[in-house]
Amino acid sequence: MITSSDNERLKLVRKLRDRKWREREGLFATEGEDLLAAGLDSGRAPVEVLVAAGAGIAGVEVEPALLDAASALGSGTRVIAVWELPSEDPPGEPCVYLHGVADPGNVGTIIRTAAALTGDRVVLGPGCADAYSPKAVRASMGAIFERPPARAALDELPGQPLGLSARGRRSLREVELAAPLVLCLGSERAGLPPELEAEAVRIDVRGDSLNVAMAATVALYEAANRMAGHA
Amino acid sequence: MITSSDNERLKLVRKLRDRKWREREGLFATEGEDLLAAGLDSGRAPVEVLVAAGAGIAGVEVEPALLDAASALGSGTRVIAVWELPSEDPPGEPCVYLHGVADPGNVGTIIRTAAALTGDRVVLGPGCADAYSPKAVRASMGAIFERPPARAALDELPGQPLGLSARGRRSLREVELAAPLVLCLGSERAGLPPELEAEAVRIDVRGDSLNVAMAATVALYEAANRMAGHA
Repeated sequence: MITSSDNERLKLVRKLRDRKWREREGLFATEGEDLLAAGLDSGRAPVEVLVAAGAGIAGVEVEPALLDAASALGSGTRVIAVWELPSEDPPGEPCVYLHGVADPGNVGTIIRTAAALTGDRVVLGPGCADAYSPKAVRASMGAIFERPPARAALDELPGQPLGLSARGRRSLREVELAAPLVLCLGSERAGLPPELEAEAVRIDVRGDSLNVAMAATVALYEAANRMAGHA
Repeated sequence: MITSSDNERLKLVRKLRDRKWREREGLFATEGEDLLAAGLDSGRAPVEVLVAAGAGIAGVEVEPALLDAASALGSGTRVIAVWELPSEDPPGEPCVYLHGVADPGNVGTIIRTAAALTGDRVVLGPGCADAYSPKAVRASMGAIFERPPARAALDELPGQPLGLSARGRRSLREVELAAPLVLCLGSERAGLPPELEAEAVRIDVRGDSLNVAMAATVALYEAANRMAGHA
């Protein structure tokens, strides 16, 4: 049983909170049994599984307080697993392109939503949060394993880009959503690059706006409906 | 200028992180200029406006490091405003009922999304996060002022309850959404009360699930479309 916070495995887990270390080691960590199960279900094998002593989960036992201290999410956990970063395939089509979405919770949520509604992969452009940060991984739930995101610049995208913007002149409802479609979303504050903003479509709302994850959800639902012939 | 963390106004702001103090004082706090503007736009007057010295915003000046230390959101802020808690009107129709949604970010996001897509108010049932916690207020953006949530139990709701559940036997697409509709969502883990679960509808997804805020977004978008005659 691990009883010292100086243990190398615990040190590794703490390092993996930082993107620099994730990329240097080629590893990332997940917290909780749901994400461990999701990784195993996806056919991956964890590099390490650290479990709270007495929790009855298979893995290397750790004094519960030490495992809690290694948790990046603050609420404590009964299991932390370490995995190899997936290899980065080039972005396929259709996909969702994010530009400057710096909040890791939004990045993870959009990865989850895209996997659930259309099966699209997410492509992370400049200024996006790392999809393997603890908060993004938690928000993505199993989708980070099922549909690992790609990284690419705008001019490397496959398919036809369609920007979503609160200032779009056309409504999402009015435009044809033809495959291969690349839905493009920017940060709430900085928005999309000008070349996408000019032809962007809006989601019709009542005065207030939607956050970027909600806007992605609506657009993906609309795209899924059209593909299925429901609207 | 406020130069001591013992200042009564700063003490009040720090207390307002806790629900107990918010309810005792009848006050809540917002961080940032966007939320201050949203409150003012809604016709409310703040009880206090504390601003970072030199930021050029009207209010009581505070040493910037002390204002950052009073921030509940961790990332620092240039303005913290204190407001009276809105009076709680009984829930009107149509509305969105949340049951056991304990994450304040999800509560705030759903308040924002409902205001944007349908104008519905949110009704908080047992086990929900407080809508006036710092994280919920931030996620709601201006909607907390525009559509303050109500609190009610299931049997006090107006209109016809329609549960959303990953295990629903009917698809949301198949059912008629007649007003006055009360969309009901539970926590991802515990779900809905049995009487709602039995007749709940599902959102069609590919294997994975949606988080509660995404599920609410899809259902509200669908309801808004049907009401507008688009689907």
